[in-house]
Amino acid sequence: MPRIVQRTERALEHYLPSSDTPPTTLHDGMRYATLGGGKRLRALLCHAAGELVEADPAILDGAASAIEMIHAYSLVHDDLPAMDNDLLRRGQPTVHVRYGEAMAILVGDGLQAQAFAVLGDLPATPIQRVALLKELASASSSLGMVGGQAIDLASVGRVLAREQLEQMHRLKTGALLRASIFMGAHCGPLPLSGELHAALDVYQRAVGLAFQVVDDILDVTTDAATLGKTPGKDAQDNKPTYVSLLGLDASRALAGDLGERAHAALAPLGERAMHLHELADMVVHRIR
Amino acid sequence: MPRIVQRTERALEHYLPSSDTPPTTLHDGMRYATLGGGKRLRALLCHAAGELVEADPAILDGAASAIEMIHAYSLVHDDLPAMDNDLLRRGQPTVHVRYGEAMAILVGDGLQAQAFAVLGDLPATPIQRVALLKELASASSSLGMVGGQAIDLASVGRVLAREQLEQMHRLKTGALLRASIFMGAHCGPLPLSGELHAALDVYQRAVGLAFQVVDDILDVTTDAATLGKTPGKDAQDNKPTYVSLLGLDASRALAGDLGERAHAALAPLGERAMHLHELADMVVHRIR
Repeated sequence: MPRIVQRTERALEHYLPSSDTPPTTLHDGMRYATLGGGKRLRALLCHAAGELVEADPAILDGAASAIEMIHAYSLVHDDLPAMDNDLLRRGQPTVHVRYGEAMAILVGDGLQAQAFAVLGDLPATPIQRVALLKELASASSSLGMVGGQAIDLASVGRVLAREQLEQMHRLKTGALLRASIFMGAHCGPLPLSGELHAALDVYQRAVGLAFQVVDDILDVTTDAATLGKTPGKDAQDNKPTYVSLLGLDASRALAGDLGERAHAALAPLGERAMHLHELADMVVHRIR
Repeated sequence: MPRIVQRTERALEHYLPSSDTPPTTLHDGMRYATLGGGKRLRALLCHAAGELVEADPAILDGAASAIEMIHAYSLVHDDLPAMDNDLLRRGQPTVHVRYGEAMAILVGDGLQAQAFAVLGDLPATPIQRVALLKELASASSSLGMVGGQAIDLASVGRVLAREQLEQMHRLKTGALLRASIFMGAHCGPLPLSGELHAALDVYQRAVGLAFQVVDDILDVTTDAATLGKTPGKDAQDNKPTYVSLLGLDASRALAGDLGERAHAALAPLGERAMHLHELADMVVHRIR
């Protein structure tokens, strides 16, 4: 896995315009927002799913870069003063703190466009590129990630039922995690089999939800230095979380159950799902 | 042309999620930002270029909708308090005035993703869809429209040379006008001939520049009611314009010359370029 994280870093270096390409401040900001940090969970999921279908690693690098650019842009906009007003991200000043608010808006906008530009130029067949485009655009859209952020925005200070909370996270973080897995699978030379699609769908639901539950647990149990961002913000903003809804112990039990569900979904796929198994464990047992 | 404006409005109605699809405020905002206004110049250019190559009008509708969504998103973000802080657009309150700043950021983000989602789902071949994707992503990127906005941001209060001013506008507005024309041409059943590509390239340069020169002229000669936005803002913000650089008379002469250049580029294409001729006149002689 560290090898894939390194590959992804190199691929992002390649697919982002260099800092000396004008407009230089914009490109510097886009690279600052994207490079040199993060767990690269989405890139790892994309590569791990690609392994199942013997996908060309060069195509996986491009797909993973596009996903990481969408993820990075969403963090830049999420951190803005009008949104979460976060000052710290991965232990560093957020983009608007460092480059100003107007430039941070443009950095996010430019990263989203760049993600789609990368897909257009991939060394893949037109059919593969269209499959990747559809998956990424739908996950990023108002019916996916951006829709989840809008629900999150509307939920501040309100009590959400567990079902509404799950719907919010299924869109806000789940949609892009799901896309990471299915985009990896679309990088293979053949169309996805119904059996594989079904297994990956159960897996992605479990991992996506586990990711959010663990996020909420870490938000109340971990300090800023370990987390690399400001902890306790959700509680402070009166945002609903699994911990506020279920309590800490029940949230931990839920995360464990979801991990089991993810492993069970992969059981029929055998050895070649090894990295997807590891990633499910990584999501459940991560400490930041 | 009014027929094409109507078609585009219907296509946008179709390609935008309805206002009663959750999250409803987000979708309402995306529709508010996009529907019921605007000259639809980009959609008209796309259809007019498509006529040259006998493109399927249903494909042109989708491509034109995607372009208009990108244009609408750029206006929403451009109007934000951290950017131009505009309160009025097409005679109506801007999106952040009506929906709040956080929602306006998400409305823009959602529109950009939706534009690419529309291209993925077009009733066109995978090769056509990839050609459209590449054209739109590149025009929207940090090397296109967003790059132009970053240069604009950095230029406030500075004196730009004419060459730098042209570079800024070539990216900020020119890139998407160019994409409108070439996307229309990519909707045809055959790859673009070298001859047609060359003619359209001269045409798009002339029309793109004329558009900006006339914009600058209108900014100092027209009242808010006619313009539908706050006039005189550029001068007030110390932004460089053609009028401040060349004076009003020389700017008018330049706009006329660029119109002639656009017509000359189309001469070898005969009758089927009729609507592109009309659009060049519309850009040069528009009053708002």
